Amino acid sequence: MSKNSKLIRPISTSSSIEVRYAETDQMGVVHHANYPIYFEQARVDWLRVMGMHYQEMEDKGIFLPLSKLTIDYKKPARFGNILSVKTILNILPSASIIFDYEIRNQNDEVLTLGQTVLVFVDQKTKRPMRCPQSIMDLILKAIPTD
Amino acid sequence: MSKNSKLIRPISTSSSIEVRYAETDQMGVVHHANYPIYFEQARVDWLRVMGMHYQEMEDKGIFLPLSKLTIDYKKPARFGNILSVKTILNILPSASIIFDYEIRNQNDEVLTLGQTVLVFVDQKTKRPMRCPQSIMDLILKAIPTD
Amino acid sequence: MSKNSKLIRPISTSSSIEVRYAETDQMGVVHHANYPIYFEQARVDWLRVMGMHYQEMEDKGIFLPLSKLTIDYKKPARFGNILSVKTILNILPSASIIFDYEIRNQNDEVLTLGQTVLVFVDQKTKRPMRCPQSIMDLILKAIPTD
Amino acid sequence: MSKNSKLIRPISTSSSIEVRYAETDQMGVVHHANYPIYFEQARVDWLRVMGMHYQEMEDKGIFLPLSKLTIDYKKPARFGNILSVKTILNILPSASIIFDYEIRNQNDEVLTLGQTVLVFVDQKTKRPMRCPQSIMDLILKAIPTD
Repeated sequence: MSKNSKLIRPISTSSSIEVRYAETDQMGVVHHANYPIYFEQARVDWLRVMGMHYQEMEDKGIFLPLSKLTIDYKKPARFGNILSVKTILNILPSASIIFDYEIRNQNDEVLTLGQTVLVFVDQKTKRPMRCPQSIMDLILKAIPTD
Repeated sequence: MSKNSKLIRPISTSSSIEVRYAETDQMGVVHHANYPIYFEQARVDWLRVMGMHYQEMEDKGIFLPLSKLTIDYKKPARFGNILSVKTILNILPSASIIFDYEIRNQNDEVLTLGQTVLVFVDQKTKRPMRCPQSIMDLILKAIPTD
Repeated sequence: MSKNSKLIRPISTSSSIEVRYAETDQMGVVHHANYPIYFEQARVDWLRVMGMHYQEMEDKGIFLPLSKLTIDYKKPARFGNILSVKTILNILPSASIIFDYEIRNQNDEVLTLGQTVLVFVDQKTKRPMRCPQSIMDLILKAIPTD
Repeated sequence: MSKNSKLIRPISTSSSIEVRYAETDQMGVVHHANYPIYFEQARVDWLRVMGMHYQEMEDKGIFLPLSKLTIDYKKPARFGNILSVKTILNILPSASIIFDYEIRNQNDEVLTLGQTVLVFVDQKTKRPMRCPQSIMDLILKAIPTD
C-alpha cells in the first residue's frame, strides 16, 4: 500500500456460489484454480451492487486485468457446498483497485482468503489509466457513512 | 452429410496430450467437459500440419465456431495418461468443416470418439461463409495420394 | 432409443446460470466447452427437485458418468447473460438415464440444445447397474399427472 | 520463511506449454485463472525429473494440496504462444514445499511470476505430515553440486 492510499470504511458485498461437480478434482475437493473464478464472479456482483455491470465498463473502452493474486487456502470446499464469498474494498482505487475476499461454507467456517490487484487499462492505447470518474463516483456514494 | 458432400481419402494427424491434474474430478477420472478442449488442441495441430496456424485464420477475419459436438465416452482417461488424439478429415469442407476424433491411451485402448462440426464465419458481417480458398488449397494438397 | 424405452410425460426443471467472465474466449462469446458444465449444474438441480442431492447418490456407492454427449450450438451466449437451462427427462431410466437440455437467453431465444446419456455405475465393482429403486421411486412420483 | 528453512542451490526444471484457445477470454489473452494450472503441470514435470510421478505419491497415501498461491501478472500470454515455465525449488521441504515459477514467451519476455506453498497430507488421517523421506532423498540427490 503506497503512502497515498486512502483507506475508507470498507464497502463489502456478499455472493452465493454453489460448487459445481466439474470444479472438483481427484482429491475429492474443489481444485485450487477455481478460486480466482469465484473471486471474479463475486467482484462482478460487487460492481453491480455499486450500480454498474462489468460489461458496461468494457463497452466504455476500459479493461480491468489482474495484476496480482494471492490466495490463502485454509480448508477445502466440496461439491454441493454453497459458498458465501465476501468481496471487500478497503482502499480508494487509483490506477489500480484492490479487493479482498473471504470464502465461507454453510457452517460459517472460513475456507479461503484472497486478494486481487486489478489495473485500469485503456483498450485503445493498451496503457494503464486512472480509475474512471464514473466508477469513482459510484464508490464514493457507496462508502458506509455510519 | 448432404448429397453434395465430397468424401476424400482421410487426412489425419496425431496429437499427444498429457492429462492435467486439474482436469480430473472427484470420480478420479478426467471430467467429461475436458474432451472438447482436447479435440480443439488436436484440431489446431491438424491445421498447423496443413500449413496454417489457427490464429492466422482469425487474423484474416475468419472465425470458426462450433456448430455441433458429439462425444462417445467409452473408457475414462486418468491423471498422468498421455493421450493420443487422432484428428481426421473425411469430407471436403464447404460452409462447414467436419472433424472426427479418436482418443487412445498408452495401451492403445480407444477411450473416446468424437465429432465436431465447425462453421466458417466472417468476423465483420458475422455471417456464415464458404471455406476460404487458401484453406481449401492446403487441404487439397494434403489429401494422401498413395 | 431401444424398444423397451418407456416414454413418460416429461419431467422438466429450470435452472438459472449467469455466464462468468472466465467462460468467454477470444471470440467474445462463451467457449463451447462450458456447455456440458452448464448441463451438469442443471442436472444436479433436476435431481435436487426430485428430492435427492447428487452427492447423496455418490455417498450411496453410485457413480453416474457420461456415456454420450451431443450439443447443437445455435447462437452464442455472452458474458453477463443470465441463461435459463431447461432439463428434461422424457424416458424412464434403465441402466442409463437420458436428459435433454434447452438453453435460452433473457430474450427467450434458444441458444443451445443438448442431450446427455449417463450410466449408473457401482463404485465398488466399477460395473454398470440398473437405476436404483430409490431414484426410480422419486421419478415415478414426479411424473406430471395432468 | 522460518529460521529453520534450509536454503539450497536451486533445483529448477523447464516445461513447455502451448496456450490453448479455450484458455483465452474476451480480452483476447489468457484468462488469469489458467496460470495455477500451468504451474501445476510444470510442478508435475519437476517431480518427474526428480524421479517420481505425482500419481505415484498419491498412490503411496500422500496428498499435496495448495496452501498458498501468489501470482504476479506482468504481461499477458496469448493463444498460440508456446510458454516456457521454469519451476524452482530454493528451500528444502519440511511439512511444506515451496516452488517458484517464471513464465516466459518465445521472445524470452517474463510474463508471469508465481509461488506456491504446498503441504504434505496423510490421506488416511487427513493430517499434515513431514516431507516423506523418499521424496527428500530424490531432492538431496538432485541439488546441483557445482
